[in-house]
Amino acid sequence: MKSKAMVLTAFNQPLELQEFTVSALEEGQVLVKLKAAGVCGSDVHMWKGEDPRTPLPIILGHEGVGIVAEFKGEKRTVDGLPLKEGDFILWNRGISCNQCFACKVLREPSLCQQRKVYGINMSCSLPPYLNGCYSEYIVLNRDTDIFKITQDVDPAVVVSASCSGATVAHAFDMIEHAVGDTVVVQGPGPLGIYAVAFARKLGASKVVVIGGSSSRLNICKEMGAITLDRHATTVEQRREFIMDITGGRGADVVVEAVGSQGVVEEGIKLLRSGGTYLSTGFAQPAGLEQIDFYYDVVRKNIRIQGVWVSDTRHTWQALNLVLENSEAFRKMITHRFKLTEANEALSAMATRQALKAVLEM
Amino acid sequence: MKSKAMVLTAFNQPLELQEFTVSALEEGQVLVKLKAAGVCGSDVHMWKGEDPRTPLPIILGHEGVGIVAEFKGEKRTVDGLPLKEGDFILWNRGISCNQCFACKVLREPSLCQQRKVYGINMSCSLPPYLNGCYSEYIVLNRDTDIFKITQDVDPAVVVSASCSGATVAHAFDMIEHAVGDTVVVQGPGPLGIYAVAFARKLGASKVVVIGGSSSRLNICKEMGAITLDRHATTVEQRREFIMDITGGRGADVVVEAVGSQGVVEEGIKLLRSGGTYLSTGFAQPAGLEQIDFYYDVVRKNIRIQGVWVSDTRHTWQALNLVLENSEAFRKMITHRFKLTEANEALSAMATRQALKAVLEM
Amino acid sequence: MKSKAMVLTAFNQPLELQEFTVSALEEGQVLVKLKAAGVCGSDVHMWKGEDPRTPLPIILGHEGVGIVAEFKGEKRTVDGLPLKEGDFILWNRGISCNQCFACKVLREPSLCQQRKVYGINMSCSLPPYLNGCYSEYIVLNRDTDIFKITQDVDPAVVVSASCSGATVAHAFDMIEHAVGDTVVVQGPGPLGIYAVAFARKLGASKVVVIGGSSSRLNICKEMGAITLDRHATTVEQRREFIMDITGGRGADVVVEAVGSQGVVEEGIKLLRSGGTYLSTGFAQPAGLEQIDFYYDVVRKNIRIQGVWVSDTRHTWQALNLVLENSEAFRKMITHRFKLTEANEALSAMATRQALKAVLEM
Amino acid sequence: MKSKAMVLTAFNQPLELQEFTVSALEEGQVLVKLKAAGVCGSDVHMWKGEDPRTPLPIILGHEGVGIVAEFKGEKRTVDGLPLKEGDFILWNRGISCNQCFACKVLREPSLCQQRKVYGINMSCSLPPYLNGCYSEYIVLNRDTDIFKITQDVDPAVVVSASCSGATVAHAFDMIEHAVGDTVVVQGPGPLGIYAVAFARKLGASKVVVIGGSSSRLNICKEMGAITLDRHATTVEQRREFIMDITGGRGADVVVEAVGSQGVVEEGIKLLRSGGTYLSTGFAQPAGLEQIDFYYDVVRKNIRIQGVWVSDTRHTWQALNLVLENSEAFRKMITHRFKLTEANEALSAMATRQALKAVLEM
Repeated sequence: MKSKAMVLTAFNQPLELQEFTVSALEEGQVLVKLKAAGVCGSDVHMWKGEDPRTPLPIILGHEGVGIVAEFKGEKRTVDGLPLKEGDFILWNRGISCNQCFACKVLREPSLCQQRKVYGINMSCSLPPYLNGCYSEYIVLNRDTDIFKITQDVDPAVVVSASCSGATVAHAFDMIEHAVGDTVVVQGPGPLGIYAVAFARKLGASKVVVIGGSSSRLNICKEMGAITLDRHATTVEQRREFIMDITGGRGADVVVEAVGSQGVVEEGIKLLRSGGTYLSTGFAQPAGLEQIDFYYDVVRKNIRIQGVWVSDTRHTWQALNLVLENSEAFRKMITHRFKLTEANEALSAMATRQALKAVLEM
Repeated sequence: MKSKAMVLTAFNQPLELQEFTVSALEEGQVLVKLKAAGVCGSDVHMWKGEDPRTPLPIILGHEGVGIVAEFKGEKRTVDGLPLKEGDFILWNRGISCNQCFACKVLREPSLCQQRKVYGINMSCSLPPYLNGCYSEYIVLNRDTDIFKITQDVDPAVVVSASCSGATVAHAFDMIEHAVGDTVVVQGPGPLGIYAVAFARKLGASKVVVIGGSSSRLNICKEMGAITLDRHATTVEQRREFIMDITGGRGADVVVEAVGSQGVVEEGIKLLRSGGTYLSTGFAQPAGLEQIDFYYDVVRKNIRIQGVWVSDTRHTWQALNLVLENSEAFRKMITHRFKLTEANEALSAMATRQALKAVLEM
Repeated sequence: MKSKAMVLTAFNQPLELQEFTVSALEEGQVLVKLKAAGVCGSDVHMWKGEDPRTPLPIILGHEGVGIVAEFKGEKRTVDGLPLKEGDFILWNRGISCNQCFACKVLREPSLCQQRKVYGINMSCSLPPYLNGCYSEYIVLNRDTDIFKITQDVDPAVVVSASCSGATVAHAFDMIEHAVGDTVVVQGPGPLGIYAVAFARKLGASKVVVIGGSSSRLNICKEMGAITLDRHATTVEQRREFIMDITGGRGADVVVEAVGSQGVVEEGIKLLRSGGTYLSTGFAQPAGLEQIDFYYDVVRKNIRIQGVWVSDTRHTWQALNLVLENSEAFRKMITHRFKLTEANEALSAMATRQALKAVLEM
Repeated sequence: MKSKAMVLTAFNQPLELQEFTVSALEEGQVLVKLKAAGVCGSDVHMWKGEDPRTPLPIILGHEGVGIVAEFKGEKRTVDGLPLKEGDFILWNRGISCNQCFACKVLREPSLCQQRKVYGINMSCSLPPYLNGCYSEYIVLNRDTDIFKITQDVDPAVVVSASCSGATVAHAFDMIEHAVGDTVVVQGPGPLGIYAVAFARKLGASKVVVIGGSSSRLNICKEMGAITLDRHATTVEQRREFIMDITGGRGADVVVEAVGSQGVVEEGIKLLRSGGTYLSTGFAQPAGLEQIDFYYDVVRKNIRIQGVWVSDTRHTWQALNLVLENSEAFRKMITHRFKLTEANEALSAMATRQALKAVLEM
């Protein structure tokens, strides 16, 4: 059997359509016929060679859903169900080593130094070759955690649960939640939209999003957020607005979902004393943030929490969230492409025309 | 100025309508013209003399909302707003001592041994006499925590936020919340209905209520719960149902909102390993529960958490919840009475005809 | 190569000395020459057939330390060090599946339903046969988590870190710790002694142990505990003592390390409002506990926490504790036997002559 | 009755010895004959006018212990004991409003915007005038939380429990504790010494202190810390040392107890992935810290926690810690002065000759 895939062979060059032979499966491996693959902002960075860890050649794509075509041995989903051919599945994009200090003593597999991620640090020059989601088929290894989706849902809508959704789940999983909270989200991209949805689902009474794109802000508004247009307001006006709606205290939680220089300075000043700043947006180097520790961190007793990737726990949470709100999340998918149009999809993301592009197979 | 009030002078006897003279206010006191007073299940127990701490004579009623008629000195709400005459307010029903170990080292004012509660352990024979909510006026003391309600809302709907709502808020404030959780609620009374609403607002994907009254179960259903009729199912069938919808694991959280003997035994068997049992319903003695520690607690690594009353933090959370869902909570108010009909209101609660009765002034 | 081992072939019959052939190692397996094996209270229960899950025949012994004799493939310790022949190691006694809901979504491998434990549910009739610690050699499978011990320490002293030590670590890992806390321990057996040490190391200012054996209580006393002899005091006197030293409040934490009927009733009454009861001692069925929920759980806002076994995180904590206090823990080892004297060791535990017996190889 | 006190009337000028008349006590007030007053680093900043909130004139001194000389009304300690004349007491230095959002909804009185602190923001021009500890007598107001000390202990040794001790208690109260942790402390001043003691008492197996004064480092060493001399090592060597003793991972917790520019940059690089940075040292403005969010916060999933002052909970914890280790803490008191030598005491602190100076009355 053969599988077509879009391969990055040289940075800044178009992905090439290549054909791979599907090898015989080893014990525990699962062959999946992909239905949809998300095109993530980090795919653009990898394509441009901005992520030094990117091995070449590589089949990009770490967000996928599909149908089980074949598997070797007995296999169960995370939910304990026996896997069957024809199952519609999503999986955790990372595979941690399960034997290191992070995996076993900290019980934080997202901190595992040996973590492998489909489409990110697994080259297609190494078996089983089909290691990314910009492809007709992918081979999942035996340690991959699999969720079966029984609900009838548009495949394109669920792919992001395994990346931006799971990362935001990770962020919200690290804090406490109380009805009545005010949450501010910086940036209405996919991370920010998930932050709105998680905040609403986890107790927040008021959610405010700051952003520059009215179409993206509108999606947040439909999910229940108040929106502040970055181009129509000053930093000071936004701060005053947050103070006004919180009785002069400031927000309980601010979620950073931007990742560009200077964002932290505005964000932490929006917090109440004792509040938490969840930084999720720095997926690549962005220089130094300047922070006045006395005024903005110590005297306000602030917590700044870096959030890096996610694990299976968070993918489960994000998947549940999406399945409960699939109509709302459908609006996030602004562009749909065929597998062979992956280069157009990357361009749409690179130019920020697309909020979220998905390849459909 | 005078205030009429309904007074319990002897157990099991009708409350008497009495008239009190409103004394001049002391520094920090607030005179409130009541708009509505909730009739709580514990009022029935007090009326019957089943709560040994009840001082006689007493103006019953610990759940109230009203309009600020007068106050002495400067006064601020918890939210930091200066109090004004005409403000529509709700307050925390308990007043803790603010100097004991529970208040200051544990920072758990609900555990304060000196905690005073309007309508529960403050007799109307002691100044300022107007110490309960079955009354035209109540005098709040200087340490009472006050919330101003700016939203236009039916007064009858918000009263329970300060009692059953706050108690359930307390319960949910003691646990972690994750999207995807399954929460089971035992008992669809006011506590149970709040448990449904809090569970839905704090991440639960599935909420199941077990109860015997179809009208009460219907209210839960409209709030998004799955319902199981106690009369139409066996204990074993209910357990199987919970196992079925949780992949054979059991519920993440079970909320006990019944308070009668034997309820714990059914409830803890519905939990998954590592789950939490929140016991909120035992407001008066109910004998012994029999628990097999090896099978049902230790081997399953279960947490059983007793939940006793609440503090201002929880009242804030419950008030926010009700104000966001006031239409849903309006259905909980099945009976409305005039102040002078307080005896009829107690009867309606005692016979369980009423889910929630409210006096309107 | 051959390995002698003591095998349980029929319940209530003496273990038999058998000789096994060591098979060629598979990828990831580690052959360990045992230096010491702990004889645990649960070994006695298994020997008597009181644990229905015990497969026959079985080499008993789930607590072991030893020297790496051989291993296949590359292998790292939890601490990230490459494993070498001659390393002195301790390992986590349980092996969880790493793919179920408990392992991956709850991140609680101790709740894994597929958990395998050396010497407890792995028969010696299945490869690699050498699956227990009452043996000259044991074969660890590829998913076993290994800790290298570089400190010069008596092997007999560290074995219990992987069982009773880790279980108590699990208990203390589920609660918060504050300097000034008072912790009461019910039962001065190995679990109770670990509870004293963990309580002292995790902030407790006062630790009180209740027990019936003066020699065991003395060990606790040397570790910094106050002791109460069960035979010289009444339940009421013990309760008064706890109230006296806590300003009338009661203990912050009570650790149950007994596991026999009725212990819970005394224990929870020793708690302050808002306190936590950690139940670690019920390793086998012991009938029903009677609990007055109104008075002893709900009105006091108590948490009762069942504690079941442990995972690698807890073994790491217990191992660190023992290595820092090895002289103190040495006193816990009251009896030492040769491998071939395993039956005498079981008897010494069964008759409670021994506090802790260890086989030395 | 009269009381002498040392008064700051103009910044950068010597304190003046003044005599105050003790007014008749109001309900709830306590007149204390001071035995010792700590001279804190922030007293030096106030004296120099570097803290803009300092009201003039003021009796400096927020750390005190003394004997109850008189009190009005009934009064209980936090521990529930009736206060008596002659009691030796320590008190919480701050008084929060007990009615704001921070006090009642967040239950974090240290975040109260109305918080008053003896010797810091209470002028001696306002009744009851004796509002600071550089004095023979102080008048505690009715909302002050009081601890009775029954142990025979050097008064000078316990004063710091109410300031630097409580602040560090606050820091450690915000994190989880596990046996086996490695804690690094930046700065061996009073905050740093408390950090060593708290880390050791709350589970840490390894505590490393970085500092420039060998005498201060020696005190840390005697408390069980490993020390690194800032003058004898490079930043890179210190980082390598921490990596070496943590299996290449980095420290679980780093406590910043310095408060000068650049300290954060070194500190956060010493953390393991997922670790926590507790910043306690910035008691006055110190400019901007430069932080690379991608490399040092997000990719490592780091928590940075600002720690501001403390409340009664933390004073209780610190007091317990000091009383258990009073001999160790005695070494921290390098200079003792009479009340009238307060200017010399401030100089000894300003020149960093003294680690901790105390006035003895």
